[in-house]
Amino acid sequence: MVTRKMDVEEYVVQGFKASAVAAGLKKDGGLDLALICSERISVGAGVFTLNQVKAAPVILSCENIEKGAARAIIANSGNANACSGKEGLEKARRTALLVARELHIPPDEVLVASTGVIGAPPDMDRISGAIPSLVRELSPQGIPGASQAIMTTDSFPKMSRFEGEADGIPYRIVGMAKGAGMIMPNMATMLCFLLTDIKIDLQHLRKAISSGVRKTFNRISVDGDTSTNDMVLALANGAAENGPLSPGDFEVFEEGMTSVMNELATMIVRDGEGATKLVLVRVAGAASEKDALTAVRTIANSSLVKTAFYGQDPNWGRIMAALGRSDIHMKEEDVSIWIDDVQIVEGGLGKGAEAEREAANKMEKKAFTLTVDLHQGGFEDRMMTCDLTHDYVSINANYRT
Amino acid sequence: MVTRKMDVEEYVVQGFKASAVAAGLKKDGGLDLALICSERISVGAGVFTLNQVKAAPVILSCENIEKGAARAIIANSGNANACSGKEGLEKARRTALLVARELHIPPDEVLVASTGVIGAPPDMDRISGAIPSLVRELSPQGIPGASQAIMTTDSFPKMSRFEGEADGIPYRIVGMAKGAGMIMPNMATMLCFLLTDIKIDLQHLRKAISSGVRKTFNRISVDGDTSTNDMVLALANGAAENGPLSPGDFEVFEEGMTSVMNELATMIVRDGEGATKLVLVRVAGAASEKDALTAVRTIANSSLVKTAFYGQDPNWGRIMAALGRSDIHMKEEDVSIWIDDVQIVEGGLGKGAEAEREAANKMEKKAFTLTVDLHQGGFEDRMMTCDLTHDYVSINANYRT
Repeated sequence: MVTRKMDVEEYVVQGFKASAVAAGLKKDGGLDLALICSERISVGAGVFTLNQVKAAPVILSCENIEKGAARAIIANSGNANACSGKEGLEKARRTALLVARELHIPPDEVLVASTGVIGAPPDMDRISGAIPSLVRELSPQGIPGASQAIMTTDSFPKMSRFEGEADGIPYRIVGMAKGAGMIMPNMATMLCFLLTDIKIDLQHLRKAISSGVRKTFNRISVDGDTSTNDMVLALANGAAENGPLSPGDFEVFEEGMTSVMNELATMIVRDGEGATKLVLVRVAGAASEKDALTAVRTIANSSLVKTAFYGQDPNWGRIMAALGRSDIHMKEEDVSIWIDDVQIVEGGLGKGAEAEREAANKMEKKAFTLTVDLHQGGFEDRMMTCDLTHDYVSINANYRT
Repeated sequence: MVTRKMDVEEYVVQGFKASAVAAGLKKDGGLDLALICSERISVGAGVFTLNQVKAAPVILSCENIEKGAARAIIANSGNANACSGKEGLEKARRTALLVARELHIPPDEVLVASTGVIGAPPDMDRISGAIPSLVRELSPQGIPGASQAIMTTDSFPKMSRFEGEADGIPYRIVGMAKGAGMIMPNMATMLCFLLTDIKIDLQHLRKAISSGVRKTFNRISVDGDTSTNDMVLALANGAAENGPLSPGDFEVFEEGMTSVMNELATMIVRDGEGATKLVLVRVAGAASEKDALTAVRTIANSSLVKTAFYGQDPNWGRIMAALGRSDIHMKEEDVSIWIDDVQIVEGGLGKGAEAEREAANKMEKKAFTLTVDLHQGGFEDRMMTCDLTHDYVSINANYRT
């Protein structure tokens, strides 16, 4: 859960190489183009944005990964290649083609991901000019560099890893992600690449990525917006050469994938645009699964609740008001609310000034939990969110200028 | 549409009196308790918050107005009397009872409205202590004072009026409102009182208030939250002594009510917490009425779009992204977007840097229009919204402290 100094060797995965360059797509001259490549064809699976407006790289990668196999990912920051029409889609295809030629692989084994400003196709000359050096510089130690090249308003690169054994053979899962704004259930301006050397079939890889996304990236919120460019891609190259997975092996792998995604998702919220607080919102006692999810989402996305987090104010009236407008089955007089272990509401009523003072103290920490018990049934859900701050406004009022 | 110096005589309505005092409910010692009273029993109608968590005064006033008649409104700021349980409801009833006694009218002819901090019942001693002087100071010129006493984070009092004729007899409609935060479709921490001396039956008064609310207060948004305390109350005391309304007379009255509510609603958005821009969001060419409303709401409530308004940035990519996640029938390549009369998107694609520069110039104004044409059908809708600013965060992070 803590950002740590990266030891490049920690993030090496057998049979994968990566590289990153500054191609000039970002105005600040930082790293903005990354290539990740497996030595052999990999089993590949992806989860993509639900936004109806899909960026060109989303359309292309969705197409290319459908067959369940891939070898390379080229990702850029600085330009989202979204709302860029036919020209944008052609540029995404051209990018895949140039990478494929340079790597001597079929173009449909290349996945493309982009993040950055929406509304104009990227500068193709800069991309094509940088591809040869990207390929030249591919190295097993290149993964952390790639994680830097996909950052936009992120303040730190996000990586996580897991080590497991399957069929008695050790394997690794390494994940990288970028996040920051437009983070909302059903993904975000969020890219996540998961690389593993386990040998696994497509059906199981898809199962692991789906259940992981549902529990992690679909349970975080920064500002309630959903981006046009989200994707989670997983490549499993089988370099570990393990035999078939036992049910127990798969369970460990699935948990490993989820733990990597969970660490990355948590980093994304912690690094939410302008965020100073990481808040786990939990709703228990809901009458249905849907009610539980609706309730956590409404609280986690309320501007008034999120500014109260920023102000370290246990303003439970705003939480009650959010619940009341969330269209769930509830009774005001049944609601209990806690900040960490301090109960501030019981039976719909405030527990008084002393409890609120204690809760305010808890809210001074960088991370705390808000728990609501509706006492209407047995369903619960949770979501990670952050506070709404002056810096969020500054970052988003000035992003393009 | 412009805040103007109040001429108290302008806001006199035959047969109504009002007064305001500082009862000590607000920490700053400002006016915080208002009484409005009709000399005779009035036809009364109301529209109340859809939030499931309803403040005590909402429950009481809803009950008392059901019979279609009322004489007085007592309204306080500083305390919302919401999430205050049985004690809160008893205090609201007690308030109505004390006013009724002092005015020598039945308690069920008194409506109660409250706004302010949620979560504790109001200080009853301060209210009961102030009622005698409130009644003593009732005056036909007291309406503007009452409009000040209902302010919370409002930066100016909000009043509007309309003069019409019915059956050849002149009448007046005077409205007051308070708004500021938690403003979102389906009302807001929003109180609005409409006073008229027209003689009208209950059915027509209800019709006029409903259609007015739908077109005005349900089409504004500040932060996407909906309050526990919203209400619009209309009292028609019949002092004009006009005869039955012709269809034409009713039409004029309905338009008059809507224009008063529209002016008040516009003032509320203009005075949205921290707002510096007033933006009319229009969506045309939607495939259905529902799609048109969903699209304007999603745009008008997007934190990313609203920070771009603040930054005077015609960031149409964020508008496209909002449309894409709004679950409406749309095709990216059919979308056109304008800022005032400057087209920035055609066929889903940006019109280029020159158009964006022109649009950015339009956005420097305090008020502008954002128009989206989906080209999917013949339905349209509109909503007033404001920008999301540093001051919004400051006001809401520090509201209770």
